[in-house]
Amino acid sequence: MSILCVGSVALDSVETPFGKADRVLGGSAVYFGAAATAFHPVQIVGVVGDDYPLDDLGFLEARGADLGGIERAAGESFFWAGRYHYDLNTRDTLDTRLGVFADFDPKIPDAFRGARYVFLGNIDPVLQLDVLDQVAAPDVVACDTMNYWIEGSRDALLRLLERVDILLVNDEEVRQLAGKSNLLKAASWVQDRGPGIVVVKKGEHGAILFGDDWIFYVPGYPLEEIFDPTGAGDAFAGGFMGYLAQSDSVDAAHLRRAMVYGSALGSFACEEFSIGRLRDLTRDEVSERVRHFRRLTAFETDFEGDGAVGAVASAATGSPDGS
Amino acid sequence: MSILCVGSVALDSVETPFGKADRVLGGSAVYFGAAATAFHPVQIVGVVGDDYPLDDLGFLEARGADLGGIERAAGESFFWAGRYHYDLNTRDTLDTRLGVFADFDPKIPDAFRGARYVFLGNIDPVLQLDVLDQVAAPDVVACDTMNYWIEGSRDALLRLLERVDILLVNDEEVRQLAGKSNLLKAASWVQDRGPGIVVVKKGEHGAILFGDDWIFYVPGYPLEEIFDPTGAGDAFAGGFMGYLAQSDSVDAAHLRRAMVYGSALGSFACEEFSIGRLRDLTRDEVSERVRHFRRLTAFETDFEGDGAVGAVASAATGSPDGS
Repeated sequence: MSILCVGSVALDSVETPFGKADRVLGGSAVYFGAAATAFHPVQIVGVVGDDYPLDDLGFLEARGADLGGIERAAGESFFWAGRYHYDLNTRDTLDTRLGVFADFDPKIPDAFRGARYVFLGNIDPVLQLDVLDQVAAPDVVACDTMNYWIEGSRDALLRLLERVDILLVNDEEVRQLAGKSNLLKAASWVQDRGPGIVVVKKGEHGAILFGDDWIFYVPGYPLEEIFDPTGAGDAFAGGFMGYLAQSDSVDAAHLRRAMVYGSALGSFACEEFSIGRLRDLTRDEVSERVRHFRRLTAFETDFEGDGAVGAVASAATGSPDGS
Repeated sequence: MSILCVGSVALDSVETPFGKADRVLGGSAVYFGAAATAFHPVQIVGVVGDDYPLDDLGFLEARGADLGGIERAAGESFFWAGRYHYDLNTRDTLDTRLGVFADFDPKIPDAFRGARYVFLGNIDPVLQLDVLDQVAAPDVVACDTMNYWIEGSRDALLRLLERVDILLVNDEEVRQLAGKSNLLKAASWVQDRGPGIVVVKKGEHGAILFGDDWIFYVPGYPLEEIFDPTGAGDAFAGGFMGYLAQSDSVDAAHLRRAMVYGSALGSFACEEFSIGRLRDLTRDEVSERVRHFRRLTAFETDFEGDGAVGAVASAATGSPDGS
């Protein structure tokens, strides 16, 4: 079994207060794949131009990705250039050239059509629907979107949501989609339209999962240097879906852990330009960070025997972040 | 033993998307006292004008507060009027009249001078220093401040910090104080100047405690209706300090729990205008909310026997917020 991921395969030029990277590997499918393959094989569908250094994606194949769905078309690859501000919470887009991505018409290879876990990266909802039509019977469909589609392709997006199990968006997007500023109400609005699970990504402020009648919160990982936040949301989605597919479960306990794995992978993505930190990431490094996440939020109540005293006491002694 | 709290005792007129309240009880010392007395007696020092409905603070006395340090002066009480925007994250100040608060010169009654836990609410750092000079030998000194003092009374504030154990501020304030956008670095900058503990309040995004070599994160409580966020930060401080004083401990385990109690009290403060929700708040209601906080963030790792499986499994089944 694999995860099917459809999204952009791009080249990015990025400036941050820490440095500059020119035409490096980027795109939602690349970040997603680099993160998800820490847990589970991924089948990637996308399009690149004849300028794309496909060989540089070899590391993804080495980690278990199948790149057989990446089409090479005549023309330029999707290119994005941006500059992050001093506080890294805001950025200016300096250039966006869609290139061959403008005519992207995802064709799912026969070998991919049996996928049981599907991630629809941030592309036109009409294309996301078209992808779903090509997949036989997925068990778990997750998707991302953005303000551009919320404004411009609302009808298609609402049709898509009816067929989606998990929506992963940022806080601004879910508020815009639902027309509600309160996140609880916005998530509930989305849940009434299809996705039983809504994951709201809040960047440095962490992420919240809204389930059927429960909520789970994971903080942003405190990094001394957020070197380059590009792709952190896609790496989050990759860690989240990769862990679920590996577990082949979407029960509450696995969803909670998937949130932490997603947040861990998102934090690693910020530590270097492009997928630099993700390409050789080991399971041990991921596990160590997940332990840190546990120490960040674990506490014991003092008014009931809740059985977790030993666990949290051990979580509360040790390393620089609460251990 | 009591907690000594010095701060404003004010009247507020507040407009939110949900309604309007006119000249209701407000001020940092009132919110702090209403929250802290859920745990521990509080001695309040402040000043009011001859227009202040002191009888309305009777509920604080009934909860164990000593109001013997509230001076009544000739003139108007501190008055603040504000209007919250639709999303409740931003507000406009419509009016601020300092009244008798402009000449506030805190005199600590003899009976209060032995206080072992001291909270210096957001007033001029020169006055905060003056209060410390009047207290014999406090064990734990916590203080709040704001951009106005960070800009205008920086030298006094830095002198104060040398004598403070716990600084409680919001994220914007700690960044401004330290001149660093990264919260880890900003907190570390503050710790180098005195306070071993820095608590950064981030409103709906929760709060982070930076300890000597550990960090603890508590999320904002997800409320369907944030009725009125006025005073939530002071209620947080009250819950935090009240719990510490009750426990008479500032070790890591108690500090972690104090963060959750602070966040719980801050969330209750948002549920009604003024101290409406705090005035009759019971310990059972607080404990129930703390259980909810636990369910919001508890997860078990799946790569080690950490002994918390039972606790988190039970935390992951039940009520609308993750129980």
